[in-house]
Amino acid sequence: METIKEIQKKVIDRLAELNLVKEPKGLYEPIVYELQVGGKRLRPTLALYACQAFSGSYEHAFSPALALEVFHNFTLMHDDVMDNADKRRNKPTVHKVWNVNTAILSGDTMMAKAYEMLSQTDDKTFCRIFKPFSDTVLGVMEGQQYDMDFETRDDVTIPEYIEMIRLKTAVLIAGSLKIGALCGGASDADADAVYKFGIGVGLSFQICDDLLDVYGDTATFGKNIGGDIACNKKTYLYLKSLELAAGTSAESELKHWFSSTDFDKTEKFNAVVALYNQLGVRQQAEAIMDEQYEEAKRYLLSSSMPQAQKDELVTFAASLLHRNY
Amino acid sequence: METIKEIQKKVIDRLAELNLVKEPKGLYEPIVYELQVGGKRLRPTLALYACQAFSGSYEHAFSPALALEVFHNFTLMHDDVMDNADKRRNKPTVHKVWNVNTAILSGDTMMAKAYEMLSQTDDKTFCRIFKPFSDTVLGVMEGQQYDMDFETRDDVTIPEYIEMIRLKTAVLIAGSLKIGALCGGASDADADAVYKFGIGVGLSFQICDDLLDVYGDTATFGKNIGGDIACNKKTYLYLKSLELAAGTSAESELKHWFSSTDFDKTEKFNAVVALYNQLGVRQQAEAIMDEQYEEAKRYLLSSSMPQAQKDELVTFAASLLHRNY
Repeated sequence: METIKEIQKKVIDRLAELNLVKEPKGLYEPIVYELQVGGKRLRPTLALYACQAFSGSYEHAFSPALALEVFHNFTLMHDDVMDNADKRRNKPTVHKVWNVNTAILSGDTMMAKAYEMLSQTDDKTFCRIFKPFSDTVLGVMEGQQYDMDFETRDDVTIPEYIEMIRLKTAVLIAGSLKIGALCGGASDADADAVYKFGIGVGLSFQICDDLLDVYGDTATFGKNIGGDIACNKKTYLYLKSLELAAGTSAESELKHWFSSTDFDKTEKFNAVVALYNQLGVRQQAEAIMDEQYEEAKRYLLSSSMPQAQKDELVTFAASLLHRNY
Repeated sequence: METIKEIQKKVIDRLAELNLVKEPKGLYEPIVYELQVGGKRLRPTLALYACQAFSGSYEHAFSPALALEVFHNFTLMHDDVMDNADKRRNKPTVHKVWNVNTAILSGDTMMAKAYEMLSQTDDKTFCRIFKPFSDTVLGVMEGQQYDMDFETRDDVTIPEYIEMIRLKTAVLIAGSLKIGALCGGASDADADAVYKFGIGVGLSFQICDDLLDVYGDTATFGKNIGGDIACNKKTYLYLKSLELAAGTSAESELKHWFSSTDFDKTEKFNAVVALYNQLGVRQQAEAIMDEQYEEAKRYLLSSSMPQAQKDELVTFAASLLHRNY
């Protein structure tokens, strides 16, 4: 049995070896560029680990696992166009290096490549993993739509926000675990249990991300702090603060700061964080994170995965929810 | 056995019944809009007809057949963004009715829906049709990339042009016939024969489209004549004219007219058509069309499809290459 770290290293090596460049180069070079931007390769690593946990091996799941990473990077390429983002991980985005049309068409091709890679396993496995993959893809797109819809709505509720991050972030983590488990021959019940574990981990992971944007340390977090506040992003922290502040002056102050992006960035950030602190929203978010994470663990423990692998997955998931803030 | 017209009518009815609207509406309503723009529904009709020709029935192929139409309409939605087209079939395009981000994300979702619909058949059929579908999707995207690349190149050769239209137009027609045949339990050899028939028909179909843009009758063609010339599109007619005119004053005249879009549209159109006529390029294009079509027919005749269905397909293909110009 290999550890998560060992599998993660193999995923990184295998992705680097993946030779996707062919004619027409203008279509395939942006795909290679996007895949080289990097990242933790969390999704294929989780898929292969789950496969190994249920079957002792994972080689036949490698192509479907990489399909999850290719799909994930496709969503980043198109999201960057939709968000008009100039950089990702400090590198210029595809639509900046090339242009918007390239990002659209190479992104489309990346999604098609993901489906192709998913199919590169035996027929029986493919038929079992196709629906979870297809449902995941559609879920992620619905999540992105809700996220865009929320930008122009001022009545977003917390349950709606949780549903949005479930779709946009959690279903792909959960889907990766489930697809891996199915590649490992897991029963439907076990595949379902690891899926639910993944949903809880994904939700905690996203709320953690919301917290890091406010309370994170730039050096460890690797992206600018305060981005969500600067662009009036309706995060859990913001929505929960509105709820906690309902009817008080803090509510109108919050709404005032979130009504424009023209404020001085630092002044706005400090004022909003002061309100968050006053309302104790950080503790509330951490409580939700812990709750989701504990529920997730219970699902994993209910599965028939060997105990040692359960333990390693739980430790790994906890490390994702690091508290470097 | 049903005729192509009968099957086409059922496809139109079934597409109209397809209930794709769900939450979030902002994601799914543009998909329904795009599908309602209309069209001949050529691809699913050909798929179902091929399925019936090899097996006598087609019901189990309906969802995969509609997947081809959904995929085709996805390409239109994204192509319209890339071409910045305001209208399609006299209706405003999705990115005009909504916005570019909507067209990107609803388009992505449409592609994912196409894969989902493809899978809605028995496992054995799905495993046989997945690769032809996946290859078709990637081929169409490569064709679109070549088409965009050609816009900024002035050394496009005729073989390159033929390869571009093979990918952009012919592989989807050919793939539809092949997928249909496989759903009907056709042998690999027969599936291959109908595929090659489809390639020839697709190539002729595209060259016919190039001809219609110059020699077509607006009333029957239903789109503005002269669009290709106005936007300097490197069609077969243009490339062949350059070849025929090499070293003569007609070559520099043609290049002059194709160097800008600022000319008076009618004056440019008349001048270019006069050059085309002088060079006899229309006859050359018709000869290539006929040659491709005859080759296509030979492939179809070599298959083990029943004679009556071969005859109907040949007659139908000929009707697509109508000479209403």
